[in-house]
Amino acid sequence: RDPKLRRVMLKEWVAIESDSVQPVPHFRQELSRMMAVAADTLQRLGAHVASVDMGSQQLPDGQSLPIPPVILAELGNDPTKATVCFYGHLDVQPADRADGWLTDPYMLTEVDGKLYGRGATDNKGPVLAWINAVSAFRALEQDLPVNVKFIIEGMEEAGSVALEELMEKEKDRFFSGVDCVVISDNLWISKRKPAVTYGTRGNSYFTVEVKCRDQDFHSGTFGGILHEPMADLVALLGSLVDPSGHILVPGIYDEVAPLTEEEVNTYKAIDLDLEEYRNSSQVATFLFDTKEEILMHLWRYPSLSIHGIEGAFDEPGAKTVIPGRVIGKFSIRLVPHMNVSVVEKQVTQHLEDVFSKRNSSNKMVVSMALGLHPWIANINNTQYIAAKRAIRTVFGTDPDMIRDGSTIPITKMFQDIVHKSVVMIPLGAVDDGEHSQNEKINRWNYIEGTKLFAAFFFEMAQLH
Amino acid sequence: RDPKLRRVMLKEWVAIESDSVQPVPHFRQELSRMMAVAADTLQRLGAHVASVDMGSQQLPDGQSLPIPPVILAELGNDPTKATVCFYGHLDVQPADRADGWLTDPYMLTEVDGKLYGRGATDNKGPVLAWINAVSAFRALEQDLPVNVKFIIEGMEEAGSVALEELMEKEKDRFFSGVDCVVISDNLWISKRKPAVTYGTRGNSYFTVEVKCRDQDFHSGTFGGILHEPMADLVALLGSLVDPSGHILVPGIYDEVAPLTEEEVNTYKAIDLDLEEYRNSSQVATFLFDTKEEILMHLWRYPSLSIHGIEGAFDEPGAKTVIPGRVIGKFSIRLVPHMNVSVVEKQVTQHLEDVFSKRNSSNKMVVSMALGLHPWIANINNTQYIAAKRAIRTVFGTDPDMIRDGSTIPITKMFQDIVHKSVVMIPLGAVDDGEHSQNEKINRWNYIEGTKLFAAFFFEMAQLH
Repeated sequence: RDPKLRRVMLKEWVAIESDSVQPVPHFRQELSRMMAVAADTLQRLGAHVASVDMGSQQLPDGQSLPIPPVILAELGNDPTKATVCFYGHLDVQPADRADGWLTDPYMLTEVDGKLYGRGATDNKGPVLAWINAVSAFRALEQDLPVNVKFIIEGMEEAGSVALEELMEKEKDRFFSGVDCVVISDNLWISKRKPAVTYGTRGNSYFTVEVKCRDQDFHSGTFGGILHEPMADLVALLGSLVDPSGHILVPGIYDEVAPLTEEEVNTYKAIDLDLEEYRNSSQVATFLFDTKEEILMHLWRYPSLSIHGIEGAFDEPGAKTVIPGRVIGKFSIRLVPHMNVSVVEKQVTQHLEDVFSKRNSSNKMVVSMALGLHPWIANINNTQYIAAKRAIRTVFGTDPDMIRDGSTIPITKMFQDIVHKSVVMIPLGAVDDGEHSQNEKINRWNYIEGTKLFAAFFFEMAQLH
Repeated sequence: RDPKLRRVMLKEWVAIESDSVQPVPHFRQELSRMMAVAADTLQRLGAHVASVDMGSQQLPDGQSLPIPPVILAELGNDPTKATVCFYGHLDVQPADRADGWLTDPYMLTEVDGKLYGRGATDNKGPVLAWINAVSAFRALEQDLPVNVKFIIEGMEEAGSVALEELMEKEKDRFFSGVDCVVISDNLWISKRKPAVTYGTRGNSYFTVEVKCRDQDFHSGTFGGILHEPMADLVALLGSLVDPSGHILVPGIYDEVAPLTEEEVNTYKAIDLDLEEYRNSSQVATFLFDTKEEILMHLWRYPSLSIHGIEGAFDEPGAKTVIPGRVIGKFSIRLVPHMNVSVVEKQVTQHLEDVFSKRNSSNKMVVSMALGLHPWIANINNTQYIAAKRAIRTVFGTDPDMIRDGSTIPITKMFQDIVHKSVVMIPLGAVDDGEHSQNEKINRWNYIEGTKLFAAFFFEMAQLH
């Protein structure tokens, strides 16, 4: 047995207060320590490890804080084997016992088979599961069936600061030869049934400004003789979506992928207890009554949400103001095969049509503040077949094939910058409470997840 | 000549920094000094003066500041004469030379016949004009043709703190025997033509809350399956008024006083330069093209303004939130003979109708946060006839008979608490800039205004 190998415990990693959200020196020191500990662990595994200096971060208050290094590690470079790259992060959300934690968030505590601690499921547990899977081959003195690369960052919860630049720089170096990227930074949709994630929605975020003049008016002195910007804006926002959630922008559904019977079957197979979902989300009634409709409207149909208005009266109390200039904000979650620039044109044209019918003397300006493409993988690709097979081996069941209604920026980065296929293989259960108090990972999920990754290596090798 | 009489100069009063808005001891001391100086002036005139202690004011920060006394003064109590009560205030808005004053705001400075200084027109000038009118009779050793009462406060710009309670207490004492109340705390609508104000609009301020749950949602995780509160609210607010400013609440116009030819003629006679009005308000295009329509929609027709939304995303930037609970705010300016409680019922019914058609599972609550009745005087009442005759005598013209689109709380207090008829006789020109930098009163307005009040005494006496 290699003396350098020792069992790395999730407890040790959770004990490091690697909070990237609170910009104070203590946490940044802990983050550096976290990355150093991880680099050391990978070195002991025999990996070639580079800790990439990411420089420092200038905060709005003038303070400058170091960005923890990103770890790029490689284990094996046999050109006959498949190369699998694992992305993970070791920073965590803030956690304060006073916020309602029943145990010390930085002291991994097992209760009834649940391992409570900040970062247990997001994302220290899954990173260690991957490392432990690799480590198992070393401990058994077996050859790894695949080449493995690791990209591990420490700023994910703070927006993956500077990561995009690093990916750009490394796309033809570190990432060359990578066959697929595995991310394990989301959750199952169930408590017991594993899942594979193959898509996320995109997002196009719009602002629509209506302006009469820069200053506000008094509603006593001017009410009755103005084209009031708020009346225009409310009419514009009111023209976007009907009470059933159907988007009213002409043409918006034209490019939405047609629904196939095969796809419908994937929704039917998914383990979702609607009653439990309703209770946990504290929503009395959803727009739809069936599991299939709900999943489809979260994942494969676009949705439009109105977020709010900037420039109007937004405080408690009663102010008699006529806002002179207001900015409405809404966004459309995009699905395959909607195109960001087409959506931008359709929305702009629609708002211009509605506005021109009002004969208002105000000025309207529509802009798209953000345009993120939807992501969808071909679930017949190698890494999906491998993941499914591995899940069948370890869990004895087919996975829920799920998507995420939100945009996961890291997925998009691998797709758009590095041009690699991504598979998301979550390990944690739906009730793990990532980002909230009493975050946990089930001992069962953690152990079975480690087995799953090892099985995934075998399946990838076999399919290569 | 009575040796106690001396000419009181506007300059002396403007020099007192009686700012009631900034809650700092210096200004409160200046306010006390201001009220003492005024009480002394009235005493020298021979008035019976009571300085009513108003106690102190607890500020949100825990600080306690004295409220300046209110002056109740009486001059003459001949039961055969009419009794005229003058309301005025001697506190001022803040003024800082650095904000763009061309002269020291507390040093009355004459330039081209204009007397610049904080409080010159709002309201120290008009109070002194009234005192000087009374004083003129004393100087000429003539009997005052009317009994005169004064109520002078020092907290008007800060919301007339504690004044309502005093009025309640004094309604059958100090105010008994008063035939009419004169207020001179607004402006003409013109630069050269005097005006009499005979009405103000009321206001009913509504909140409409739409709630799914207390917490917000993430638009990625929940967008597409919810009855979103913002979509409901935008539809509710969008149902209130059409692009031409017409209120869509059924029945809302039912009680609006019919327009008579006589009334139309009063608008025709009013001196308003539309081009100048458009420029000074920086509004390119109003809803209406003619002077008459604009005045009627500001004064004699109701208007509905949407003020804003509480609980939605209101900051700069792009936040992908689905607000869980939002409160829309709007108000209707009321005109004779609209009734606050009828309007409350109509608006509530309308919103309930619109909401129920949406079949939303959210909860909606409508409430009227504020209900202020419109005020209108009968312009055939004695004090109006007297004011018109006095204006004809002094200015050689009929006044603009004007209203105010806003609610003037003090007018309402005299009407609702003391039950006295009010006439508003402004002295200042439309461009006096009350509340803004370089406030002024024209020397001509100040002098002619003094004559106007003296003439008003004669006319009131004659009509009694």
